[in-house]
Amino acid sequence: MSTPAPMPAKLKAFLQSSSLQVEQTLKTALADESRAEALFAAMQYAALGPGKRLRPALVYASALALGGEACAANCHAAAAALECIHAYSLVHDDLPAMDDDALRRGRPTCHIQFDEATAILAGDALQCQAFELLAAAPLAAGLKVQLIAELAQASGARGMVAGQAIDLAAVDQSLTLEQLKHMHRLKTGALIIASARIGALIGGADEAQLMAITRYAEAIGLAFQVQDDILDVTANTETLGKTQGADAARNKPTYVSLLGLEGAKAKAKELHREAHQALQELSPQAGSLNFSVLQQLADYIVNRDY
Amino acid sequence: MSTPAPMPAKLKAFLQSSSLQVEQTLKTALADESRAEALFAAMQYAALGPGKRLRPALVYASALALGGEACAANCHAAAAALECIHAYSLVHDDLPAMDDDALRRGRPTCHIQFDEATAILAGDALQCQAFELLAAAPLAAGLKVQLIAELAQASGARGMVAGQAIDLAAVDQSLTLEQLKHMHRLKTGALIIASARIGALIGGADEAQLMAITRYAEAIGLAFQVQDDILDVTANTETLGKTQGADAARNKPTYVSLLGLEGAKAKAKELHREAHQALQELSPQAGSLNFSVLQQLADYIVNRDY
Repeated sequence: MSTPAPMPAKLKAFLQSSSLQVEQTLKTALADESRAEALFAAMQYAALGPGKRLRPALVYASALALGGEACAANCHAAAAALECIHAYSLVHDDLPAMDDDALRRGRPTCHIQFDEATAILAGDALQCQAFELLAAAPLAAGLKVQLIAELAQASGARGMVAGQAIDLAAVDQSLTLEQLKHMHRLKTGALIIASARIGALIGGADEAQLMAITRYAEAIGLAFQVQDDILDVTANTETLGKTQGADAARNKPTYVSLLGLEGAKAKAKELHREAHQALQELSPQAGSLNFSVLQQLADYIVNRDY
Repeated sequence: MSTPAPMPAKLKAFLQSSSLQVEQTLKTALADESRAEALFAAMQYAALGPGKRLRPALVYASALALGGEACAANCHAAAAALECIHAYSLVHDDLPAMDDDALRRGRPTCHIQFDEATAILAGDALQCQAFELLAAAPLAAGLKVQLIAELAQASGARGMVAGQAIDLAAVDQSLTLEQLKHMHRLKTGALIIASARIGALIGGADEAQLMAITRYAEAIGLAFQVQDDILDVTANTETLGKTQGADAARNKPTYVSLLGLEGAKAKAKELHREAHQALQELSPQAGSLNFSVLQQLADYIVNRDY
């Protein structure tokens, strides 16, 4: 697994299909019904541009693993909600007062393409849209409240936003490995974990299954970040779609700066193994067809080159 | 009602009590449990500073009118959620890229007191906190989903955020009275209406009662804005707690610029009458003790001098 391999056809098809579905849901949700044209254009630009759509894919894949094919239709709103939160966080993170990035996914960032005020508002509205989507989902009210609670806890001041605050405060600071892990656990991990848990809840997971899915998602969430840090020094700007070496230039602590490149690669390998072990705890279903997407997602996260 | 009068003792007591309650709920919700100290400090600064707490008061007052005294305990989370959304919107509206205000409620704005990045994140986290509070409220799941849907629709790209986007685009533009009304209906009206509707839903309102409460809230929401525009030219900075004449200096259209000062005062009077009429439609309860707070709130909004 440590050398890049082509993406398995099944995973590729799954990612394409879940990506198309989430774009369809978002196109409907973000259709402009008001007189605030620039606002909606910026929301669409942020949420419907090129992107890996990893979090929606995790929602669909976890629901598939726990509840089977029939669950996919119940995931549309939640998958789109996760993408809205992710998109809003990128728009705000890129702002001049934050990471001050001009390039994202190979395009001008939202505040460059529009303006700063519109980018702030588009981010605000995308966050809100996520909760609106979940509240309107065709699911039982009790389940919807669970999903909204999961999403809110993962996104807010004790989740993603806290991670971003700690990350900003860490510029030019030396973090320990434990502090770096804590920051990433909040900044990117919380939403990835919420994606998997939300899919699992839609799939009808019991408490033990939810714990195993959480461990799986914790491992791939951290692996994703370790791989990001590796790519920040090994990939070029064109492949990456964002400015290569940006973290190093900003003097931000990374897994590569703390562990060295080889140490970071070993860490990614270890997390990849943990993810697969967590899936095995989900037996007797583990190893079945419905689990292969989660397994392949773990492989992809460590093998990806962008 | 057109000359300022002292606030009735009952309304004063009600506002103090609901304000204390919402502060208590928020203090608990915003207790710092993470390592992101500045983030939590900024959230507390924004949500717990001086303020009229009008939206939480409307939640409690509408629940009281429709469901009686016993409903108050069911309103705590929703009242705090409304204040979180309002506080977040002020923090983001004050940012340099938006209205660029340095003074709010007599204190430095959040990005002046902390920094711009922290203010953006505190606003983001306060929005999220609102939905987290509602999801965790001790209410039936079906009602919680209704309240979350109301709040999300009022706050997002078809509500408050759209209003702010239209407002920003209107600087140096000439708006018609109809366009100005549309903008305010979204920017401040939507959240005021949601506050009243959410309280009414907690109080068990039926569809007809909900419609009447909505008309009441539409009228006081617009009256609130008209009075804001009047105070922007008649009050001084110290009383107002924000920069007097700021809208005029920014060349923003206002009710005073479109209708003249006397015309704006007449408009406030007309809206005040509409609010009282809407409450009368809620008979047979209208006029009872439980309705007096809503009636007095309508009076207060037009009589207030800050």
